[in-house]
Amino acid sequence: MKQFSYELLHVDKHTGARTGIFHTPHGDIETPIFMPVGTAATVKSLLPSTLKEMGTQILLSNTYHLYLRPGSDIVREAGGLHKFMNWDKPILTDSGGFQVFSLSDMRKISDDGVTFSSHVDGSKHVFTPEKVMEIQHDLGSDIMMAFDECSTYGCDKRYARGAMERTHRWLDRCAKAHTNGKQMLFPIVQGNMFEDLRVQSAKFVSQYAECGIAVGGLSVGEPAVVMYNMLDVVRPYLPENMPHYLMGVGTPDYILEGIERGIDMFDCVLPTRIARNGTAMTSKGKVVVRNAKYKRDFSPLDEECDCYCCKNFSKAYLRHLVNCNEILAAELLSIHNITFLLKLVEGARQAIKEDRFADYKQQFYQKYYHK
Amino acid sequence: MKQFSYELLHVDKHTGARTGIFHTPHGDIETPIFMPVGTAATVKSLLPSTLKEMGTQILLSNTYHLYLRPGSDIVREAGGLHKFMNWDKPILTDSGGFQVFSLSDMRKISDDGVTFSSHVDGSKHVFTPEKVMEIQHDLGSDIMMAFDECSTYGCDKRYARGAMERTHRWLDRCAKAHTNGKQMLFPIVQGNMFEDLRVQSAKFVSQYAECGIAVGGLSVGEPAVVMYNMLDVVRPYLPENMPHYLMGVGTPDYILEGIERGIDMFDCVLPTRIARNGTAMTSKGKVVVRNAKYKRDFSPLDEECDCYCCKNFSKAYLRHLVNCNEILAAELLSIHNITFLLKLVEGARQAIKEDRFADYKQQFYQKYYHK
Repeated sequence: MKQFSYELLHVDKHTGARTGIFHTPHGDIETPIFMPVGTAATVKSLLPSTLKEMGTQILLSNTYHLYLRPGSDIVREAGGLHKFMNWDKPILTDSGGFQVFSLSDMRKISDDGVTFSSHVDGSKHVFTPEKVMEIQHDLGSDIMMAFDECSTYGCDKRYARGAMERTHRWLDRCAKAHTNGKQMLFPIVQGNMFEDLRVQSAKFVSQYAECGIAVGGLSVGEPAVVMYNMLDVVRPYLPENMPHYLMGVGTPDYILEGIERGIDMFDCVLPTRIARNGTAMTSKGKVVVRNAKYKRDFSPLDEECDCYCCKNFSKAYLRHLVNCNEILAAELLSIHNITFLLKLVEGARQAIKEDRFADYKQQFYQKYYHK
Repeated sequence: MKQFSYELLHVDKHTGARTGIFHTPHGDIETPIFMPVGTAATVKSLLPSTLKEMGTQILLSNTYHLYLRPGSDIVREAGGLHKFMNWDKPILTDSGGFQVFSLSDMRKISDDGVTFSSHVDGSKHVFTPEKVMEIQHDLGSDIMMAFDECSTYGCDKRYARGAMERTHRWLDRCAKAHTNGKQMLFPIVQGNMFEDLRVQSAKFVSQYAECGIAVGGLSVGEPAVVMYNMLDVVRPYLPENMPHYLMGVGTPDYILEGIERGIDMFDCVLPTRIARNGTAMTSKGKVVVRNAKYKRDFSPLDEECDCYCCKNFSKAYLRHLVNCNEILAAELLSIHNITFLLKLVEGARQAIKEDRFADYKQQFYQKYYHK
């Protein structure tokens, strides 16, 4: 497993924030990092060349979606996901666990795995830990996620414990089924919103972590303070010498609070999804581009941003595109929103190196959330 | 009007095909040329930077659409269409005449102009020759089209003559209303499918042509041979020392037959529209990308093409994108289809310079149409 290593560069003196370099077979990733989501082997509306120009270092893609369409066998025959989608930098694939529980119909969970019906055509499928490893081997992602059960927010402790224990048994089977040295398996800490379960899970799954560990099942509807507390609780049990990945988190505040608690990797569909709805994240807060007040606003979307969208177009133009349902609106706003989060973590990395992360966070909050 | 000039480089020895350079305030255009259509100040789904990388030399945009949304006053306040849409190469705007007749509701034509209801919100508007010049002045396009009445295919000669005569009176008013020297007004030859009317119209409107003349009202449903004949009929009356623009024409065969008949400029929504439907034009003919036979076809869309799409992606990937309704499918196929037509005219220019245009056309037909 020589191809993967994590180099811790610096820990902020006043917070738990840390910066480092995650070395992978498809290149280095500076952490903390935000990973744009390319669900169906495409970050919606963006050319790979555009993603590169924006400074994207790693993408996430979804095992569940690719398994159903086009089929992981086809991706394998294409030479793997990197070649299929023309992305030669690192790729992380999730395990499909979360999607099986949130998107599919008629799921049935047993210790062996999950039986579910495709949300596309209703066809019946079974995901087991072994199957999910096989699919991710076919995809050839750099980072594979273990198959887990993400128990529903609000479930009782008994259910949460059962799901966690199943996740742990599945992790063991994933590790046994993971036979190649080209891909890194990240185990996932579960335990819902129960502190003792989270600690138990972090301790258990750490044993399987070679160069990366994830915290799953957060940002699923719980109050922010509950999530922050869970991160504080698991933090001491996350191995220091590897990246820590907080799954599915993408609002600026969650990212910054995660970084403060030692998280190194984030992903979320938020920047591209709100872009397609005509909403932008800017240094002064959210902007709903369709708003009539931008009709004659010839200033850039974000004066402080140097992305392709902000350098070349006005709010008036963007509003016009949104108003006409033009595809270009989704593209330009996706470029901007992803760049915004990439710059947010880039600024965080620099601030950590200079031991001023707390100030960085506070200044951002003042400008973005006006608080 | 020094900023505009047409330099005839060569006329093919065996056909009427010609190649030249059209000098405009926003740069030179090599002719014959294909102009991608950016209806609402965007070539659907493509970044301007991508259009440039593809070799696009001039864009067309639609007066009718921009007048309704965002409003030509807003484009003027933005500093003109070039700045608004971030395109610093030449732009041609149509007169809105064709759209008023084809898209709007409840139109009423009089000698003064056309009263119509917006297809967007039903609001009532009046286009007169003077109004259309004012709008195009606001837009600041390099090439403005005269306001014309494009009579319906199949109308009787009496109606066609009336519409043509109105077009001529409107042209005179357009010329009088066109007061700046920064934009070039192209008059439009009409006359429906009547040879004598076409000749009469070509003779009349030529008097107003300073550096460019257009043939309108063709490719509106008539058989190909009828269109070719109309082009043959008007050809002797089109001034040689300026570009000839055949409006709304974009299939490969129409472009090649137009070039053979001395046409220099073409535009059509075809390459981008069929791209959004998942269809590609390739050197071996049309490809319906969704077709199941491409599921495992890992070869490029067009082996002979070096566009971003063909260099980096397989048919299997493109089919997957189309199948999942991914926006990227529209982008990649638009890139390819526009590039395909740009390469078609580029090849024609070279062939004309070497007096082998007829061979070029025939070879293309054999490969593309298998005839």
